[in-house]
Amino acid sequence: MTERSTLHRLPNRGSNEMEAVYAILDAAFLAHVGFVVDGQPFVIPTLFGRAGDKLYLHGSAASRMMRTLEAGVPVCVTVALVDGLVLARSAFHHSINYRSAVVFGTARKIDDPAQKNEALRVISEHLITGRWDEVRVPASQELKATTVLELTIEEASAKLRTGPPIDDEADYALPVWAGVLPLGLKAGEPVPDARLQDGLEPSEFIRRYQR
Amino acid sequence: MTERSTLHRLPNRGSNEMEAVYAILDAAFLAHVGFVVDGQPFVIPTLFGRAGDKLYLHGSAASRMMRTLEAGVPVCVTVALVDGLVLARSAFHHSINYRSAVVFGTARKIDDPAQKNEALRVISEHLITGRWDEVRVPASQELKATTVLELTIEEASAKLRTGPPIDDEADYALPVWAGVLPLGLKAGEPVPDARLQDGLEPSEFIRRYQR
Repeated sequence: MTERSTLHRLPNRGSNEMEAVYAILDAAFLAHVGFVVDGQPFVIPTLFGRAGDKLYLHGSAASRMMRTLEAGVPVCVTVALVDGLVLARSAFHHSINYRSAVVFGTARKIDDPAQKNEALRVISEHLITGRWDEVRVPASQELKATTVLELTIEEASAKLRTGPPIDDEADYALPVWAGVLPLGLKAGEPVPDARLQDGLEPSEFIRRYQR
Repeated sequence: MTERSTLHRLPNRGSNEMEAVYAILDAAFLAHVGFVVDGQPFVIPTLFGRAGDKLYLHGSAASRMMRTLEAGVPVCVTVALVDGLVLARSAFHHSINYRSAVVFGTARKIDDPAQKNEALRVISEHLITGRWDEVRVPASQELKATTVLELTIEEASAKLRTGPPIDDEADYALPVWAGVLPLGLKAGEPVPDARLQDGLEPSEFIRRYQR
């Protein structure tokens, strides 16, 4: 662990334990990937998967992010999950309940078609477990059109906030409602494709999708 | 507009119109802020507000992000909203419906206490409209402990995907359920603070909170 993953602010809300990092990564499917081109930072949202200490990213072979990352530059991958608004009695003590993980590493391009296919399976299963087995697997020209990157986690930190607002003692006397408004990513009713064949129903893992 | 905000991939899903960018920024409250320290990219999730072409960020005066950004370095601020999982008949055509905005600019520190207070009001109202007027406003020592940054949007792009999966023609014959599983950040029931005074109820804007 070096300076880049040291928790400076509110270290009591943070951890460098990999199990804490993994738990947050696994509860999310959207990552924000940071990289640098000519001194300019870019932050691009993208899907990802995890297996052990590896993260997998995919994208078009033509994308700037993929072309930049496959050169092995330093990468920061961040995920954040919002769990609620923390409504205190003073503006200053407002906050959010959240879980976030910040990962540092460098990526390498996966060339072997079988390894590429496996990495895509990991990303797909990370997004929606069970789906891979019921759909058509990637054809060889689809694999060729896709860049798949493997990023080994070199360092990481996790941070979270839970629980009620913490107000200044004097403010508890104010006649202001305070508490937590829970927030979370929720699934609605599946919307069937207009060209769906008759008699097909979404699998149980689609109906019961929870994040 | 320069190369950094040019949409390379799927430009039909993107826009450099500021109204499109603003609409996405205003539908979100969590941003991922990218900056560079000694060649290393960092991506940190944080709350933000917007007024016109300015974004406002706040944090502890001691935070690495605040100390780095106030020096006027290049910053990338990205927001992403997930609207659904796009479940195609092939693994390759799976996607998500989303709205994202990528903003480039440089930040300056706000020193004037009245301007600082106003920027904090913008951030608070962006998070939960109406709350600022019912809570205790920041005291002068609270303003001093907080760094507030104003980032002028120099360039930006918006990108989104909507609608059903687009499958290869041959795949429509596969006996696979396909469609969209809608996803969105939803609020649950407000959880009152344990030390809440008797008789206080959450305001209507808390009960009806939608994102």
